[in-house]
Amino acid sequence: MKKVIIIGASGKIGQAALSGLGHHDIVTASGSGKGADYQVDIGSEESIRELFKQVGSFDAVVNTVGICEYADFSDMTEQQWMTTVLSKMMGQINLVRIGQEYINDGGSFSLITGILSSKPIPMAIADATTSGAIDTFVKCVAYELPRRIRVNSINPTVIEEAWGVYGEMMSGFQPVPGSLVGKAFARSVDGFITGEVITVDA
Amino acid sequence: MKKVIIIGASGKIGQAALSGLGHHDIVTASGSGKGADYQVDIGSEESIRELFKQVGSFDAVVNTVGICEYADFSDMTEQQWMTTVLSKMMGQINLVRIGQEYINDGGSFSLITGILSSKPIPMAIADATTSGAIDTFVKCVAYELPRRIRVNSINPTVIEEAWGVYGEMMSGFQPVPGSLVGKAFARSVDGFITGEVITVDA
Repeated sequence: MKKVIIIGASGKIGQAALSGLGHHDIVTASGSGKGADYQVDIGSEESIRELFKQVGSFDAVVNTVGICEYADFSDMTEQQWMTTVLSKMMGQINLVRIGQEYINDGGSFSLITGILSSKPIPMAIADATTSGAIDTFVKCVAYELPRRIRVNSINPTVIEEAWGVYGEMMSGFQPVPGSLVGKAFARSVDGFITGEVITVDA
Repeated sequence: MKKVIIIGASGKIGQAALSGLGHHDIVTASGSGKGADYQVDIGSEESIRELFKQVGSFDAVVNTVGICEYADFSDMTEQQWMTTVLSKMMGQINLVRIGQEYINDGGSFSLITGILSSKPIPMAIADATTSGAIDTFVKCVAYELPRRIRVNSINPTVIEEAWGVYGEMMSGFQPVPGSLVGKAFARSVDGFITGEVITVDA
């Protein structure tokens, strides 16, 4: 049994992650802190550091959140780009950068990206671009982590549980059960793989 | 003959681009403005907009620059990350975002990325991550550009002309002549391809 921090456990992807990691000692964190063990804003270095200090000893960080702005490319403002870059991209990079100081030997980081980086749809250019950044980051940074620490990203298609929200904009996509995404997180946390982008698609 | 703006024409990759685009009407721009027709800081929206306003009518933007910080992942500061993200990543995105308002019908954008996103080496995590972002951006944003405007990225290995600078950190890489990278820029500017990552490797 490992001590696993799940960030965003109450969200739909967070619930999916939880479904695959129930055999572990789970600690939850979220932006609001409501219904979670800890509060964290992944857009803030200080908040990330505070989380890891408070939790103390842990073996895995599973991130399922990241603020993402959706708009047509021609309408998307610099501000919307930066909101996405600072949260979904730099926020996740900072989870690894700061977390590597605190995580136990042989620990792992599991980050979240998404299918829209390889199957583009309207309005999702910032989501796609930052997913591409994180998938590349994971493949390259794996070689740099000390003490057998591992890092992977989970790049899922839309899950059935979120189809009500995203279905209309995702014509032609086949949703998968969240439990399948949970398995991907489990493979990242429990396995020995590192530097991998775990794609979950139908 | 097209009117082509080359940003960073005096640099080594800029010279390589120039070698493939000499049959066009070339306008040059650089960070210092020295020896170039125009001065531009791609890290500034205002500076980018000013460049396009000053040039007036043009058919292609070829970017060969982007500030990149190099350090071990564990040593790299938030500031070093943001310098790289704001220049090499957001700077190039903004060239397309703002440039699409000014470029002629059927015009093209050619951005620069690099081999280290697929062949990682020490010290280059920010370079690799932002290259991955731009390569993904290009593949996805191509569908959104109006008026038959195209966008590609050139993802080269190190060129022979730069081996003196980068050779020591790039053991096992085979440099290619800059003229081969010039051909890649020409294929992007003169062809009909869009949304492509043009890899140049030995």
